[in-house]
Amino acid sequence: MNKRVAVVGVGRMGANMARRLKDTGHPVVAVNDVNTAVAAELASELGCAAPTSLAEVTASADVIITVVTNDAAMRSIFFSGPGSLLDLASGKIFINCATLSPEIHREVSAAAAATGARTLEASMASSISHARNGQLYLMVAGDRSAFEECQTLLKDLSVSMRFIEGGPGRAAEVKALVNMVMNINTAGLAEGLGLAAALGHDLTMIREVFSQTGANSRVLETDGADMVAREHDCWFSAEHAAKDSGIAQALAQGKGLHLPLNDATQAQYARMAREGLGELDKSGIAELTFPGRHAHP
Amino acid sequence: MNKRVAVVGVGRMGANMARRLKDTGHPVVAVNDVNTAVAAELASELGCAAPTSLAEVTASADVIITVVTNDAAMRSIFFSGPGSLLDLASGKIFINCATLSPEIHREVSAAAAATGARTLEASMASSISHARNGQLYLMVAGDRSAFEECQTLLKDLSVSMRFIEGGPGRAAEVKALVNMVMNINTAGLAEGLGLAAALGHDLTMIREVFSQTGANSRVLETDGADMVAREHDCWFSAEHAAKDSGIAQALAQGKGLHLPLNDATQAQYARMAREGLGELDKSGIAELTFPGRHAHP
Repeated sequence: MNKRVAVVGVGRMGANMARRLKDTGHPVVAVNDVNTAVAAELASELGCAAPTSLAEVTASADVIITVVTNDAAMRSIFFSGPGSLLDLASGKIFINCATLSPEIHREVSAAAAATGARTLEASMASSISHARNGQLYLMVAGDRSAFEECQTLLKDLSVSMRFIEGGPGRAAEVKALVNMVMNINTAGLAEGLGLAAALGHDLTMIREVFSQTGANSRVLETDGADMVAREHDCWFSAEHAAKDSGIAQALAQGKGLHLPLNDATQAQYARMAREGLGELDKSGIAELTFPGRHAHP
Repeated sequence: MNKRVAVVGVGRMGANMARRLKDTGHPVVAVNDVNTAVAAELASELGCAAPTSLAEVTASADVIITVVTNDAAMRSIFFSGPGSLLDLASGKIFINCATLSPEIHREVSAAAAATGARTLEASMASSISHARNGQLYLMVAGDRSAFEECQTLLKDLSVSMRFIEGGPGRAAEVKALVNMVMNINTAGLAEGLGLAAALGHDLTMIREVFSQTGANSRVLETDGADMVAREHDCWFSAEHAAKDSGIAQALAQGKGLHLPLNDATQAQYARMAREGLGELDKSGIAELTFPGRHAHP
């Protein structure tokens, strides 16, 4: 029998995961969000409950999926004392899908274990539309037995899924590495296209040459045209990019590694957030490198 | 009738271009190098002359291909006064294939025009083996009529060739942009893999995840395994990477653009050159980012 599922944090990503799970026959019994109006609307769409009490969310479900913004939000739902998700959580499985620091996964995992619950992190290298269509790329770590029990659910969400050994936090580390390199490539591409624009080159020709040479990258495919056209509708925000590059930065510092490109990339995305561009897509970093735009008006 | 060809600068790249041209039926009449022994050996292999006088090289050929190290070497062969390549050069075509600053192409072009000669730059986004097999990726700029007259020769060297409008220096600019972005992606990949190594992850798994996500890039394919295995036999040296990122840096400064990732990348490759790692392949930048290697012993 399929496990009863609740989703905490139903922004666009969490909401689409809930929709996909319902579509594929999983009983979605409850949704919750700090924005109670958003949770109520989704609950009405899905025909489920929208308890405002986190303890009630846990009581109603077997598997609680969390998709919250950052480490602080994660702490507030798990460590807020009585009435948190860990109230009477024995036997429950928590699956966190947001990109957070590896450390918070270890903290939540230890606290959950103390109450008799198990945790997984299912880090996503994907975007909102992938969630709706069950096309997520998932990197899973944490409790192996919980992973086995949640195979069907995770498979229904994903087009690719791998379990990463080493306990809680290990998938979050890999996710941080992926986003760190992706963000560097994005920031670098924005510099190349920005300089090409300043030199007056045909940017369609430049993108084609890049695609045929050592300059090619996945972000050239996904973000190159958007950088030129200033199409920065958000798929993955500059603010999230700053956060993820910052997670990698903290990991590097912890290991005593000097990684100047990640530092420069984090500084660029942090600058975007500081200067009011944090809600743009990560491709919006081109606003810092093209002549006649934000940083070089 | 095929034009008589001479090649000046017969390091591995120039020598392979000469071999390829001979193989495809072009009369290679002379080779020249500052290292006269290398030139003499190649001349003996190809059955051609090895004049030590640059003026003699020009006199013997219709098309003179130059593949020299840097702007200074270019100046020394074109602007050394009497006895240089521009002596009695009327009617000749000079094709430069090295990655140099756009500015030097403009200088050489103007000086050649004053003697009645024409110039092309044929910038290569390729490596030594591609030269041997006629598989170069060529970006050509300069004199359009000279380009038309050299079509057969350039096609016999290349798998892909495009003419870039705007006069001398424009192909060199595009080449600088390609290498700038390639070098940033390479430096970023080295940081991602170095941090993954520090965290104790399986680097084969990490490279696979990178290849399936937004972290994917051409340099992941060409350099990822080499970074892990410390296989830094030279295809494209760290010293060349420093030079090319530096060309892009000068172009950006000229346009008043602040491009921090390129600055950080140039600094890393310059550091390699300064600390005795300049002869390593560009993948050798991993020696600066992996724990237990050069920069983090």
